[in-house]
Amino acid sequence: MAAMNRRIVLAARPHGEPTPQDFRLEEVPIPTPGPGEVLLRTKWLSLDPYMRGRMSAAKSYAAPVEIGDPITAETVGEVVASNNPDYRVGDLLTAFAGWQEYFVTDGKGGRRVDPSEAPPSTALGILGMPGMTAYTGLLNIGQPKPGETVAVAAATGPVGSMVGQIARLKGARAVGIAGGPDKCRYLTEELGFDAAVDHRAPDFPEALAQACPKGIDVYFENVGGAVFDAVLPLLNDFARLPVCGLVSSYNATEVPPGPDQRPALLRMVLTKRLHIQGFIVWDFRAQAGDFHRDVSDWLKEGRLRYREDVVEGLEKAPEAFIGMLKGRNFGKLVVRVSP
Amino acid sequence: MAAMNRRIVLAARPHGEPTPQDFRLEEVPIPTPGPGEVLLRTKWLSLDPYMRGRMSAAKSYAAPVEIGDPITAETVGEVVASNNPDYRVGDLLTAFAGWQEYFVTDGKGGRRVDPSEAPPSTALGILGMPGMTAYTGLLNIGQPKPGETVAVAAATGPVGSMVGQIARLKGARAVGIAGGPDKCRYLTEELGFDAAVDHRAPDFPEALAQACPKGIDVYFENVGGAVFDAVLPLLNDFARLPVCGLVSSYNATEVPPGPDQRPALLRMVLTKRLHIQGFIVWDFRAQAGDFHRDVSDWLKEGRLRYREDVVEGLEKAPEAFIGMLKGRNFGKLVVRVSP
Repeated sequence: MAAMNRRIVLAARPHGEPTPQDFRLEEVPIPTPGPGEVLLRTKWLSLDPYMRGRMSAAKSYAAPVEIGDPITAETVGEVVASNNPDYRVGDLLTAFAGWQEYFVTDGKGGRRVDPSEAPPSTALGILGMPGMTAYTGLLNIGQPKPGETVAVAAATGPVGSMVGQIARLKGARAVGIAGGPDKCRYLTEELGFDAAVDHRAPDFPEALAQACPKGIDVYFENVGGAVFDAVLPLLNDFARLPVCGLVSSYNATEVPPGPDQRPALLRMVLTKRLHIQGFIVWDFRAQAGDFHRDVSDWLKEGRLRYREDVVEGLEKAPEAFIGMLKGRNFGKLVVRVSP
Repeated sequence: MAAMNRRIVLAARPHGEPTPQDFRLEEVPIPTPGPGEVLLRTKWLSLDPYMRGRMSAAKSYAAPVEIGDPITAETVGEVVASNNPDYRVGDLLTAFAGWQEYFVTDGKGGRRVDPSEAPPSTALGILGMPGMTAYTGLLNIGQPKPGETVAVAAATGPVGSMVGQIARLKGARAVGIAGGPDKCRYLTEELGFDAAVDHRAPDFPEALAQACPKGIDVYFENVGGAVFDAVLPLLNDFARLPVCGLVSSYNATEVPPGPDQRPALLRMVLTKRLHIQGFIVWDFRAQAGDFHRDVSDWLKEGRLRYREDVVEGLEKAPEAFIGMLKGRNFGKLVVRVSP
């Protein structure tokens, strides 16, 4: 065991796009577990777009990370010391340990990870928060019906790839939006999406319209911006829009110039009777059991696939995170912090 | 019986605010009912903001009125000739007769009006489409819970006044927004709203905040614009926004200048987990029976009040309609077309 705990803290609040200077790698003593606590050594660290929000001071559904504190993140850690009879050394456990190598917890708020069920990193992806975000948002708010069209952006990411695959399991048509031909090919050839559209192509709006000949009944919103612009005219009456993220605007530093498109959006809400609803995964925490049962079954039956983008070493987290906000990852981005 | 049918047709599509020149009063022969049909003489004509939308060619949930055709409107008419054994001369019937004195119908799509139950004009207000809009939108989408705060604009109008009163019947706090001190006084003193705020007052946003010390849980949206701006920062997490109208923008002729407030709205949808949903009353037509039963009961029990703004004579309809879009009516606007 190393004598020190390496961690990455917020050095400065990013202005717009985060830069490496907004993060600082530092070493602090490894904490000691108190009564009822365990010491976790981080194996897998999850990088997710929501972390950009936590780096800002703006009010949101969760408190911001303070300057000098480790960046918030869910992790899979291995128990390396235990003062809690419920956990033995070697057990794997999820925790919100943040961007660091060691973390003390009483285990509350985390869950056990069974490596015989699936690779432990999936507890941060398809079997974790991103998977449950897709599952709960799509089924509770999106409610796709057989034959309907479900569109999702960032479709090769952990949320988008699940949205499309679950939509197909429910009998709907899945249209994925992703950046570049490789990702689009992966969607149709590997994940079974009915169509994939490259949002970087100059004819993106027309291509999306062609990929949705019967319009869009569910648009799972996780990016906003130009993709939303292209989706809006294709929405059918009574379309549902679960909103779980707006990655395209996370780095915005000022209110965008006009025209003001809010009145036009509200007019469309009215005339098409749209249902737009924001959510975060914890709003549906009561469904965690259903989620784990269904997704585990689908995985075992080979009906769900996933892809991970693995970064080696905690020190690579800032660069990988900055790239993710630009769409550079291909699959669920995780950092292997220790072997 | 007059020899001719007077009607008001769309002379030109309004550009922005409608003007008297957009309408034309004309006389055509009274139509003759065919087999199974009845001839209705219009007694009451309803004027509602949605008609502004029908005067434009823009795509919406209903087809536009054609140039030269009578403006769309629901009416209460008296059967003056009948070739249908189900209807006798003297029966009262609702119909979408439009802005005219006579109309032939087979009765389908209309319903009988029982003058012993309530004054017949209420079939166009509290017991008609506006009342059912308030009832279905508030109860299905707004879902107010006891102790929550429900805010509604155009609160002395037929929809808004019902929204606030039903909210109170469900144990919620009702905050009405209206134009001018007379209307505000009416809301609190006559209708029992918990608070009323004048949107014309210079300190309107601050006054609204003071009237909603625990924030807003349901905002029943029927106006948009500056009222929406003042409501947004007061919305609580998980607030619901049924959207049934956007009167403030019905006369808009161009996309408003920037900044673009759409991204900020979507960010608020996400961080506050708002539920925004457009609807029209016909989406809930299956609940017409529940609506009539509940509202009739509440009326008989004296738990609901209403106010009508009666205009005398068909020829006054254009002027009254133009004024309504500026908030000049006080109560449900109806035209008495015949005695």
